[in-house]
Amino acid sequence: MIITLSSDITPEQLQSLSALIGSFGYKLTEVKTQGGRYLVAVGSAEFDIRLVGKAPGVSDVHRVSDAYKLVSRKWRVTPTVIDLGGETHVHEGDLTLIAGPCAIESEEQVRSVVSHLKRNGVAIMRGGAFKPRTSPYAFRGLGLEGLKMFHSIASQAGIKVISEVVSPGHIAEMYPYIDIFQVGARNSQNFDLLGELGKVDKPVLLKRAMAGTLEELLQSAEYIFSSGNEKLILCERGVRTSEPSYRNALDLNAIPALKEKSHLPVIVDPSHGVGVRRWVEPVALAAIMAGADGIIFEVHKHPEEALSDGAQTLNYLQSERLIRRARAAFQFRRGL
Amino acid sequence: MIITLSSDITPEQLQSLSALIGSFGYKLTEVKTQGGRYLVAVGSAEFDIRLVGKAPGVSDVHRVSDAYKLVSRKWRVTPTVIDLGGETHVHEGDLTLIAGPCAIESEEQVRSVVSHLKRNGVAIMRGGAFKPRTSPYAFRGLGLEGLKMFHSIASQAGIKVISEVVSPGHIAEMYPYIDIFQVGARNSQNFDLLGELGKVDKPVLLKRAMAGTLEELLQSAEYIFSSGNEKLILCERGVRTSEPSYRNALDLNAIPALKEKSHLPVIVDPSHGVGVRRWVEPVALAAIMAGADGIIFEVHKHPEEALSDGAQTLNYLQSERLIRRARAAFQFRRGL
Amino acid sequence: MIITLSSDITPEQLQSLSALIGSFGYKLTEVKTQGGRYLVAVGSAEFDIRLVGKAPGVSDVHRVSDAYKLVSRKWRVTPTVIDLGGETHVHEGDLTLIAGPCAIESEEQVRSVVSHLKRNGVAIMRGGAFKPRTSPYAFRGLGLEGLKMFHSIASQAGIKVISEVVSPGHIAEMYPYIDIFQVGARNSQNFDLLGELGKVDKPVLLKRAMAGTLEELLQSAEYIFSSGNEKLILCERGVRTSEPSYRNALDLNAIPALKEKSHLPVIVDPSHGVGVRRWVEPVALAAIMAGADGIIFEVHKHPEEALSDGAQTLNYLQSERLIRRARAAFQFRRGL
Amino acid sequence: MIITLSSDITPEQLQSLSALIGSFGYKLTEVKTQGGRYLVAVGSAEFDIRLVGKAPGVSDVHRVSDAYKLVSRKWRVTPTVIDLGGETHVHEGDLTLIAGPCAIESEEQVRSVVSHLKRNGVAIMRGGAFKPRTSPYAFRGLGLEGLKMFHSIASQAGIKVISEVVSPGHIAEMYPYIDIFQVGARNSQNFDLLGELGKVDKPVLLKRAMAGTLEELLQSAEYIFSSGNEKLILCERGVRTSEPSYRNALDLNAIPALKEKSHLPVIVDPSHGVGVRRWVEPVALAAIMAGADGIIFEVHKHPEEALSDGAQTLNYLQSERLIRRARAAFQFRRGL
Repeated sequence: MIITLSSDITPEQLQSLSALIGSFGYKLTEVKTQGGRYLVAVGSAEFDIRLVGKAPGVSDVHRVSDAYKLVSRKWRVTPTVIDLGGETHVHEGDLTLIAGPCAIESEEQVRSVVSHLKRNGVAIMRGGAFKPRTSPYAFRGLGLEGLKMFHSIASQAGIKVISEVVSPGHIAEMYPYIDIFQVGARNSQNFDLLGELGKVDKPVLLKRAMAGTLEELLQSAEYIFSSGNEKLILCERGVRTSEPSYRNALDLNAIPALKEKSHLPVIVDPSHGVGVRRWVEPVALAAIMAGADGIIFEVHKHPEEALSDGAQTLNYLQSERLIRRARAAFQFRRGL
Repeated sequence: MIITLSSDITPEQLQSLSALIGSFGYKLTEVKTQGGRYLVAVGSAEFDIRLVGKAPGVSDVHRVSDAYKLVSRKWRVTPTVIDLGGETHVHEGDLTLIAGPCAIESEEQVRSVVSHLKRNGVAIMRGGAFKPRTSPYAFRGLGLEGLKMFHSIASQAGIKVISEVVSPGHIAEMYPYIDIFQVGARNSQNFDLLGELGKVDKPVLLKRAMAGTLEELLQSAEYIFSSGNEKLILCERGVRTSEPSYRNALDLNAIPALKEKSHLPVIVDPSHGVGVRRWVEPVALAAIMAGADGIIFEVHKHPEEALSDGAQTLNYLQSERLIRRARAAFQFRRGL
Repeated sequence: MIITLSSDITPEQLQSLSALIGSFGYKLTEVKTQGGRYLVAVGSAEFDIRLVGKAPGVSDVHRVSDAYKLVSRKWRVTPTVIDLGGETHVHEGDLTLIAGPCAIESEEQVRSVVSHLKRNGVAIMRGGAFKPRTSPYAFRGLGLEGLKMFHSIASQAGIKVISEVVSPGHIAEMYPYIDIFQVGARNSQNFDLLGELGKVDKPVLLKRAMAGTLEELLQSAEYIFSSGNEKLILCERGVRTSEPSYRNALDLNAIPALKEKSHLPVIVDPSHGVGVRRWVEPVALAAIMAGADGIIFEVHKHPEEALSDGAQTLNYLQSERLIRRARAAFQFRRGL
Repeated sequence: MIITLSSDITPEQLQSLSALIGSFGYKLTEVKTQGGRYLVAVGSAEFDIRLVGKAPGVSDVHRVSDAYKLVSRKWRVTPTVIDLGGETHVHEGDLTLIAGPCAIESEEQVRSVVSHLKRNGVAIMRGGAFKPRTSPYAFRGLGLEGLKMFHSIASQAGIKVISEVVSPGHIAEMYPYIDIFQVGARNSQNFDLLGELGKVDKPVLLKRAMAGTLEELLQSAEYIFSSGNEKLILCERGVRTSEPSYRNALDLNAIPALKEKSHLPVIVDPSHGVGVRRWVEPVALAAIMAGADGIIFEVHKHPEEALSDGAQTLNYLQSERLIRRARAAFQFRRGL
């Protein structure tokens, strides 16, 4: 059950409201975000919720049968709109394109990709500064200095920046140089990180875990939301199967399923989702047709020279074609 | 290595050719189909294949490094065209729509679906007469009598018939009443059945196994081809994962991968691939955008009253919309 | 619901009993095996089953809530004993050892393995004559002639023979030369084959499918049982995962789970379950400790020269050690 | 390549050694642990490693072909011994038993379990104070105060304490109250946490990820080792499959595989590995037979009243029996 509190609820009203709900055996979590104040009540007893709805200081009350609550579309039917400033938004009914290299490598590389994105009207650039790599001996990114450089060049060009955060300890130092925090598949259930990201006022793009279920993804989003941050984007990036032809199997069933279960925008990562450069475009277009609100993909001037994961990275020609076709596919889907 | 034999090769020429190739330590399989005569040679020794190319009775010779040979696109670059008679074809560059109920139930049901397909210009109808069901106590189909009835009604309306075959012993009796034999996921590696289907001259639609790899699917196709039948259609129908929201996870990465690996047409089964009626359309359209040569889906006048698997079956309204949109999506993809 | 019929039930009694149960909306399957006569009734209506218990010709009646019925331990608590003649039995409370080559290759090979088994007191020998192979170009076994030769040599030595059957069409010709029919993972849901094996009076060892659930395995067993053959052995052989270090992941959780769910004996195939020769012994011993009623493993005089799947095959020294330790492990477990 | 440095290597010697190895195109990582000093060199060029072996300040040099280096048994053949003080060790050739509740709940609960472990001679107790829970609304543990209380009671009884750490920010505050840090499946690739655990001098038990490969587990261990901490224990806890009968599928193939690949001790978590209380014992005994160096399982006075995950938790009677049988199984395996 989610109880939306009115902004002028008094401490006394809140206390007696909590006592009322507690009396039915429900466990309460108080949530305060930039968007509102809520009480999340978890319990199973049946009672007349009009008792709660009529209580002073309550603006609204809904039963939510899902295990996740605040991210559920059973509560909030209207799609969430993520406002990135300028005219950049991420939301259902629009197509968000995010592109950039796996890892930030150099000023020259960033300038080159920024120009590529500007030429193609892409408003958000990805680029890892803190890279989670399976091997401790692999290139782990340029760190904070790399992020500063990335942000400086991109923001001068009016391009928003998304980059992965791998530690709660990095959030504060990354904050000034980032527009969207990305949580990768390996940290999708790093609840400590999620809780800390709930305390910031910048959007978070949350990827599904390697073998994570949709409910786990939504529960992870619930961690962030219930810690105070409503600006969430879900991301499907493929699951592990026993098929050796590709790194992961992009699960496009997840698109209609997540769109139905949650009010949050859903974007798809075809680069990691298939892991083979020449198959990125067809699965990206497929994702858009399945209803994705955007795609995030890897691009590099010379993919074969990229410092990491070049195998799945498009070159500029391939990227231009994908961007053009992605927009056409989105317009086509809208027109259906 | 695949050696295409000329039609007038003499037994002596074939013998000395076999001896020549055998002398390099290669194992030979002689293949005779309606389309041609081939020798498939499996081995690893290096030798000058021009020796083979110049031998009398040889029309062509190719090295094929894949484990599968005759179904590989490394050998045959031109896409295979399946001719069903009339003006019905299945092939790359076209969109084949196949629809119908999970199981044939009654004359009335067949007539109703046939009318629905006619109204919507769908040329091939699916319908199970021999149903492979997990439980021995579930409805297993009307059998041969059902197939006869199905074929009689459909063919009078000019509609081709596809139905699942579950036993080598049924092939001969089903043969007069069928246009395409379907091999289901559970029989995808029933090599005995595959070998027998190699001996007929009607097309076979072969589904990927529950947890089957693409190579296994192609090897299963190789069984049929090398037994004499070149008229093959591959079908992606979802793989098993640990996600509980849907029955299977449709693997659309498989579309560009299979199209690249093989010259055979690839169609997608969104009904089994997602297993939830309201998500069939988005993943079907996604499959077309990913490059599928067709889709096969379930439709029933009253899905909730269907004798089997109604949960994934569209009603006529949903089917009409999917057919219209599938065609539009195909035209859109062609125009890219 | 399972109704055990008395042997002297009259046709009239059966008819009125069927009518009675049918009147509650239950679907009936009549089952006649060498062990007894049963009616399996599937439905959901509540009624007083004592009405059925008191009907003439009924010897016993049980509700069985599982989807599978006749193989469920909720119906038959006493473990099934498979009698192979001589003093060879397969059942809970004993340890059945089955060993032999992947494929029958030659008389010399069979004689050698038979001697090895005799020296080690192993009573059942495995050996494929009809091999299901992923590639049509791989060695597919010596066929019926191989099986005859295998059976002739083994039976003279007093050793029972188990071999895989891959087609309903082979059952009759294999019948005289076999003691246990084996159904492999790829045919685990080949319901046509299962139904035909229900009509013979020799035991069937049924393997779990590649990604098969326990319920699917038990339903496949139910197919055979409900077609008339109670002599069933279940076999865990590993499931597919994304781990590349081994061919399959042996699922030993399945042992206590299957033993609890069914009255049928459960044996384990460590050779396919791990696929790496030097890890066969530890997982085989683990399987016994988890409660397996036996193991089936591959042995060859010279594994590296075996015509198929030598990578997972033990040599005689390794086999002797495993046999000795398996017996010790079984004695140890019994003594707990 | 791993170069073990002598303790008296001079900065100049190290510099010229680094220059030498760098000249072959190798990337160097300097590692300093409580156990020694090493250079890990990653590259592929062929050169005469005796050049390195003879360099001043070098005590030893090994090529290691695995992707992981310092945790590989190709480098260190002797099994790692984890010394917990007192007479408690974790290592190959011994059986380590770790038991305790899922979560620390109260003083009374801890005292009760401590008594149970003392009575049964178990030297290490598990108990979560910071619980990673899928839902943000579930009980997340008593936190630091709970850990202090747990440690105080356990250490007075001479029992070592293992507890999960979920954030780098908690390491310092947990340090005084813990004997082994546990990293759970969801944080198995939280590389930031792993790196920080490399800086402490207390042992770390590292669990395999939900769908993690063995190589990923070993690479995660390599993160900790290369950050300075050699005291590592690997833990198999089951992988995700599509089988619905149990929460995870315990992968016992991993035991012989990990023991062969690494010198680190390997223990098994049967509680999470099967997730069903009554099947914990058979799979635990199986794990020991497969070669596990220990088991970690959940026990609670009243499992059904446990604040979390009671379904897989043993009661005292079941725990006593498992402990007794586990020891017997270990003695039996040793005697083979």
